[in-house]
Amino acid sequence: MKINVKKDVLSRQNRVAAGNRARFEGAGAFTVNLMSSPGAGKTMLLEQTITALQKDFKIAVIEGDLATDRDAERLRRLGVQTVQINTVGGCHLNAEMIARELAAFDLEQTDMLFIENIGNLVCPSGYDLGQHRKVALLSTPEGNDKIPKYPVMFRRTDLTVVNKADLLPYVDFDVNRAKEDLRNINPAAGFLSVSAKTGDGMDDWISWLKREAEQCLNR
Amino acid sequence: MKINVKKDVLSRQNRVAAGNRARFEGAGAFTVNLMSSPGAGKTMLLEQTITALQKDFKIAVIEGDLATDRDAERLRRLGVQTVQINTVGGCHLNAEMIARELAAFDLEQTDMLFIENIGNLVCPSGYDLGQHRKVALLSTPEGNDKIPKYPVMFRRTDLTVVNKADLLPYVDFDVNRAKEDLRNINPAAGFLSVSAKTGDGMDDWISWLKREAEQCLNR
Repeated sequence: MKINVKKDVLSRQNRVAAGNRARFEGAGAFTVNLMSSPGAGKTMLLEQTITALQKDFKIAVIEGDLATDRDAERLRRLGVQTVQINTVGGCHLNAEMIARELAAFDLEQTDMLFIENIGNLVCPSGYDLGQHRKVALLSTPEGNDKIPKYPVMFRRTDLTVVNKADLLPYVDFDVNRAKEDLRNINPAAGFLSVSAKTGDGMDDWISWLKREAEQCLNR
Repeated sequence: MKINVKKDVLSRQNRVAAGNRARFEGAGAFTVNLMSSPGAGKTMLLEQTITALQKDFKIAVIEGDLATDRDAERLRRLGVQTVQINTVGGCHLNAEMIARELAAFDLEQTDMLFIENIGNLVCPSGYDLGQHRKVALLSTPEGNDKIPKYPVMFRRTDLTVVNKADLLPYVDFDVNRAKEDLRNINPAAGFLSVSAKTGDGMDDWISWLKREAEQCLNR
């Protein structure tokens, strides 16, 4: 019986995700679900991404956190439409939380929407929010074994971005090894290495976003 | 109805946790539930801890991971009794998983048992495994905002250990600020800063373990 309850909840979530996706497409808003461990640098990556893109694109952000609106505050300072969802202990966002926020969201004025998920390398991976692309961020201090150890996340994402490349001299992380590990479990996925802090590699990430947005929205 | 199912599952887990606790106490095995984000350095901290303690204490480890037995392999090399639990996507260990392993475990030959939980700063916090002490590891590259942003974890732990102190010159982390943040949400909890890599601060951690073991087992 417990299995049926779970199945029912999931199929409702999938219907809501499909509704979100229809809204994103209708409004022409390319949507990225950004996931990672706590502290991998999701918010800093978004700060740099917004700064790079906001002269050409109208950007908006939905921020997920267990508690506080610190991350939303950081992004509002850049002048982009940002809403904060606090899950109060919940370990991932789901499609219904997003649908609730979209009700009051100016999606028609949005070219790119970033959803910053809860810092968690496990739970968010299983939940479709209706996004066009799922991106996993992995930071170099987390170490070289995370892709095989957390396959549920990396197997299901369209792109893995290795962040904090500036710390490579001080930590045990081999970028080529990570790329190889990703290819083993998810050969179709993209792979990039950046430092949001120094700006290194950010051009590749920005190009990826533009290209995928074009492809997804058939512009 | 879903609430009742959840309540029932939790109360069963709590009964199993109480059973685990009775077994730990009966065998005189001081037990620590070690939790953190992925890549904060739980396994390396355990490697150094085992090396420091194993001449005086019989150490054993229960390793939790979504997939692979890499961490258990690292610890077995040190000659300690180690079992690996793979949760196959499950985001935390629970008391029943531990109870199943204890059935075949030589607990009478164990003075200290470390349970390395799944790398996740959210889900493991709510599950009693029957441990004597809960320890949260927080690594400096994760950044200074994690204690207020993940209060469910840090509010419920007996000790927070800041790891990767060797990276402090290269990352944005203020140890005093973290200590203050912890005091605000959990004034009774302990706080230590270490580098498992360089050995810095490890003496304080080892002393804490010895003192708490003595206190818990009334030796």
